[in-house]
Amino acid sequence: MTDKSRSNDTENKVSRRQLLGTTATVAAIAGVGGAGVARLDHVVGPAEAQQPPPARPGAQKFEVAPGELDEYYVFFSSGQTGEVRIIGMPSMRELMRVPVFNRCSATGWGQTNESLKILTEGLTPETRERLKGRGTGVWQNGDCHHPHMSFTDGTYDGRYIFINDKANTRLARIRTDIMKCDRIVELPNQYTIHGMRPQKYPRTGYLFCNGEYEVPLPNDGSVLDDPKKYWTIFSAVDGDTMKVAWQVIVDGNLDNTDADFQGKYAFSTCYNSEKGMTLAEMSASEQDWVVIFNIKRIEEAVAKRDYKEMNGVPVIDGRHGSRYTRYVPVSNSPHGINTAPDGIHVVANGKLAPTVTVFDVRLFDQLFDDKIKPRDVVVAEPELGLGPLHTAFDGRGNAYTTLFLDSQVCKWSIDLARRAFKGEKVNPIIQKLDVHYQPGHNHASMGETKEADGKWLISLNKFSKDRFLNVGPLKPENDQLIDISGDRMALVHDGPSFAEPHDAVIVHRSKLDNRVTSIWRRDDPFFEDARRQAAADGIKLENDSKVIRDGNKVRVYMTSSAPAYALETFTVKQGDEVTVFVTNVDDVEDLTHGFCIVNYGLNMEIGPQQTSSVTFMADKPGVYWYFCTWFCHAMHMEMRGRMFVEPRPA
Amino acid sequence: MTDKSRSNDTENKVSRRQLLGTTATVAAIAGVGGAGVARLDHVVGPAEAQQPPPARPGAQKFEVAPGELDEYYVFFSSGQTGEVRIIGMPSMRELMRVPVFNRCSATGWGQTNESLKILTEGLTPETRERLKGRGTGVWQNGDCHHPHMSFTDGTYDGRYIFINDKANTRLARIRTDIMKCDRIVELPNQYTIHGMRPQKYPRTGYLFCNGEYEVPLPNDGSVLDDPKKYWTIFSAVDGDTMKVAWQVIVDGNLDNTDADFQGKYAFSTCYNSEKGMTLAEMSASEQDWVVIFNIKRIEEAVAKRDYKEMNGVPVIDGRHGSRYTRYVPVSNSPHGINTAPDGIHVVANGKLAPTVTVFDVRLFDQLFDDKIKPRDVVVAEPELGLGPLHTAFDGRGNAYTTLFLDSQVCKWSIDLARRAFKGEKVNPIIQKLDVHYQPGHNHASMGETKEADGKWLISLNKFSKDRFLNVGPLKPENDQLIDISGDRMALVHDGPSFAEPHDAVIVHRSKLDNRVTSIWRRDDPFFEDARRQAAADGIKLENDSKVIRDGNKVRVYMTSSAPAYALETFTVKQGDEVTVFVTNVDDVEDLTHGFCIVNYGLNMEIGPQQTSSVTFMADKPGVYWYFCTWFCHAMHMEMRGRMFVEPRPA
Repeated sequence: MTDKSRSNDTENKVSRRQLLGTTATVAAIAGVGGAGVARLDHVVGPAEAQQPPPARPGAQKFEVAPGELDEYYVFFSSGQTGEVRIIGMPSMRELMRVPVFNRCSATGWGQTNESLKILTEGLTPETRERLKGRGTGVWQNGDCHHPHMSFTDGTYDGRYIFINDKANTRLARIRTDIMKCDRIVELPNQYTIHGMRPQKYPRTGYLFCNGEYEVPLPNDGSVLDDPKKYWTIFSAVDGDTMKVAWQVIVDGNLDNTDADFQGKYAFSTCYNSEKGMTLAEMSASEQDWVVIFNIKRIEEAVAKRDYKEMNGVPVIDGRHGSRYTRYVPVSNSPHGINTAPDGIHVVANGKLAPTVTVFDVRLFDQLFDDKIKPRDVVVAEPELGLGPLHTAFDGRGNAYTTLFLDSQVCKWSIDLARRAFKGEKVNPIIQKLDVHYQPGHNHASMGETKEADGKWLISLNKFSKDRFLNVGPLKPENDQLIDISGDRMALVHDGPSFAEPHDAVIVHRSKLDNRVTSIWRRDDPFFEDARRQAAADGIKLENDSKVIRDGNKVRVYMTSSAPAYALETFTVKQGDEVTVFVTNVDDVEDLTHGFCIVNYGLNMEIGPQQTSSVTFMADKPGVYWYFCTWFCHAMHMEMRGRMFVEPRPA
Repeated sequence: MTDKSRSNDTENKVSRRQLLGTTATVAAIAGVGGAGVARLDHVVGPAEAQQPPPARPGAQKFEVAPGELDEYYVFFSSGQTGEVRIIGMPSMRELMRVPVFNRCSATGWGQTNESLKILTEGLTPETRERLKGRGTGVWQNGDCHHPHMSFTDGTYDGRYIFINDKANTRLARIRTDIMKCDRIVELPNQYTIHGMRPQKYPRTGYLFCNGEYEVPLPNDGSVLDDPKKYWTIFSAVDGDTMKVAWQVIVDGNLDNTDADFQGKYAFSTCYNSEKGMTLAEMSASEQDWVVIFNIKRIEEAVAKRDYKEMNGVPVIDGRHGSRYTRYVPVSNSPHGINTAPDGIHVVANGKLAPTVTVFDVRLFDQLFDDKIKPRDVVVAEPELGLGPLHTAFDGRGNAYTTLFLDSQVCKWSIDLARRAFKGEKVNPIIQKLDVHYQPGHNHASMGETKEADGKWLISLNKFSKDRFLNVGPLKPENDQLIDISGDRMALVHDGPSFAEPHDAVIVHRSKLDNRVTSIWRRDDPFFEDARRQAAADGIKLENDSKVIRDGNKVRVYMTSSAPAYALETFTVKQGDEVTVFVTNVDDVEDLTHGFCIVNYGLNMEIGPQQTSSVTFMADKPGVYWYFCTWFCHAMHMEMRGRMFVEPRPA
């Protein structure tokens, strides 16, 4: 199985032997269900015999003593919970939840005017119209998959975290200075975003968003069960404006995506090249592909208007034969795709094949110039085990691939894999470590940047089964922390997590230390609408506490300073539309106030120097106390006032 | 300051000297704001000089190695987040979130028919009517304060967790077999529930719920700014039926509550005996009181109908002079109240006074028989420090009181405090330990039961300030874990938590080991409505996958088994009201499925052997994929199907 024999294969005729003939076997095993079986902690694979005996396991501790700080921020998606979580590493403690696509009772996300603006302004006009008057007027669920930090020059620049919503086809941005979501955009023409990654070079730049599900376009019911007329879309969103820059129609059904370190290419796995509509159809073929997108050519197409505009977006045809894409055959149903910190290698993970396929990005120019064939960009294809899903890197030439069915992480050498692919008798596998159980994504510290530091790996496992006290039929997932600083991986901590630790990025604190604030700026754009309304009402938010009546709209302005609201009472009439603006004039770190009205179903967070507002109907007459929900002072219980709702005249 | 001099004071004339003359000082200090200052870890108070030198600090580890299990379940309220959290102790890892008063994107809580039933059926008819057609038809926020497990014979019986909602005046119950909320009741006639505790003996029995805010009754707008006409209510809810058993009108403004170990009394602190409406008025008086409720007398009043019925509830007059209550004067603004595991002592915590007041419950019979005066039930009143809020117990005669303003936990001896109160020259204070910062509730392992084991204490601190990596203006709170197994307290772990770790109970796993299940029972009452509807439609939920049309109502039944839904497509018409019932027929531990429809804003959890259902309007024509949101299988990505929505004829 030499390099030569492989490169002699034609694009669309990769041999069964080359694909290792194991797809069918793996699919059969997959068929028995997701149940894993506990194993010994350390399995010595056949690979180990030929490796020098392992010398030094990592000796790092996960414990962070009281008063000490973690070294890394980990930004976790939360899967179907719809928020982003900030975890400290190595302690693996949850430091913050950032509500994004979900409704948050504590902060009022999905209820305050500031959050409702963010949740609605980036929707397509059609969706905004559709949601008007429906429930709360916004989607209340999201399915977060892939959080990523913005890059500059191949490493994290600390500006933003981006996160996709698979459920309602949105991309959100989190400002890292305040750790709040500031923009959400819904992608038109696309149904679901699955894979999402930022451009790494020269900067982000684009966010690449994979459309996973095929639908007819327009999807207005004129075409229903006619899959031949279904399309899948790949999108690039501008991370600065949070607008869709361009879209590409592709063949097949995209899964995960990544970008290079040169700013020239993005690439996506396709698990359903068959465009199958059923489980059997989707995995019928023995091979699928990786689609490579040529960013420069696409930008040129946009410039010279070689596209069809759909819902205001330039849509480029990137199906087979297009000059904008190349389709590289790989084994059945590839899943994750990961660029190594060396800036050279890209690993596509087999899922239903036991192999990962390694590309050399330096060959992509030749591929697009038709000087080589698609499979010629493949430089290694090691067989690692059952169900390879995602690969992380330590910056020392090693890769760490999760094996879903084997419930293991496989550490392997990229160099040895290349040598093996060329025919040398070496085994690239260095170690396999059991994880508990069924790992999906994994991630290494700084591992998706050119500054990968090889200290920690987290394995995000989909099942925890018996690893924690039983908490009922719904069990936590399990994020396991693995020390990769030594020659051998060492499991040091099990971390239960609520649905679901889908993916995460590990960012060294030095990227954020001088960026994250504790006190809001009074000119923050987050509450600019409140400033504008106050100005129109002749109100100085930091000083004035008064009630403005405007027909049956009432605007109540008040400041808060522990332990009191400046207004001890205010009066409205039944049927009024009331907006309460609270400005927290405390200038003390960590001194957040809340505002909740009893039996009126509302609550919001007001951080130090922040203004927050909420609008509601005064539908029930009587005396309603409002109170502070963020414990702020020894006399916090006394921080309250009365809203009088005068009854509608009989 | 002898016991004699105290008991000679009359009920309403406790001298300024007796109240230690420090209220004003504390209030002034409180006025500077909630900011705390970092201190040395260990402060030696004046008390220490006279104690024997401390011998043995605890030597327990918080670390629970991979694969090992925690020893305790901790049930945390989440304050304004509205959920209950299950934490493993001593590792302090979050094992599960149980949505209760909040909207949960992951599980569909607040969206599935099963959860909507629970969220609406216990509301008052007036609130149900009010919420109809408003937003999602349910409150979407809650302010959870005090989680407690049900008791039998003075200790946890593992049946239920109860949690109150201060925001919208509700009490919820969580079934511990499935760790899901199964009942929520709104209390009529009451505005907010603050303090909430279960009856400890003979069993729970009652849940005692403090009304905090005074309002006119009925609160219909006919009385507004006339505080003389405001009332405060104390309620007892039947924990089996989740109906309000009776209510008591009291003077003043209740705060926290607890019950005895004899099943005879409940007692509540009152921080606003003045019935003040403003901050100044609320703390004007130098003393407030603890109200003691005589359960037997109240039950007799209900039996002989000595009450006024309001909104279907017997309401008893328990104001000053009533035979159902006694009012015991204590220093200004008492906050927490805690019964010691010895079944004898009850500690009311001073908040604005530096003292805690200790009662002997054995004297309450005599008090109600008018044989002694109210203050005669006080047997100790040690001065502990600034801002005492709550007290926990180790079962060895020691008490642990949080000092909010001092940011400390004070360990003291109940026996020494009694002796000091009698005039003996002893100092009850054993040790003060700095916490970080501003502690509110604390809790000891099994500490509110007669089985208090004195191993661990958690201090739930309201501010974390500089203890964790900076995550923006909103910071986590800090739950600190303290080893109390030795002679001296030792801080072993800082635990950040999202808003807010208001209160918690620590339950030994032996109370739950044989109770918590992993697989739903097919006859579980949780989804009995789905079974009823299926039977009416001739559907066997575990076998049948089909679509039933009933006018413009469509019911879609399907089973799910990894990695497929039994229906690969279903068709509805634009404008249909669609209900999808998914029955997870997988019988494998931890194999949860999800059901989400792209761009339709819905998602739900379906545990192994569970049926879940969701109803929505098919408002947009076209092809919409539904997919599994709980990673269930190597081919999880392929677990999907299509909903066809036929367009409304033009």
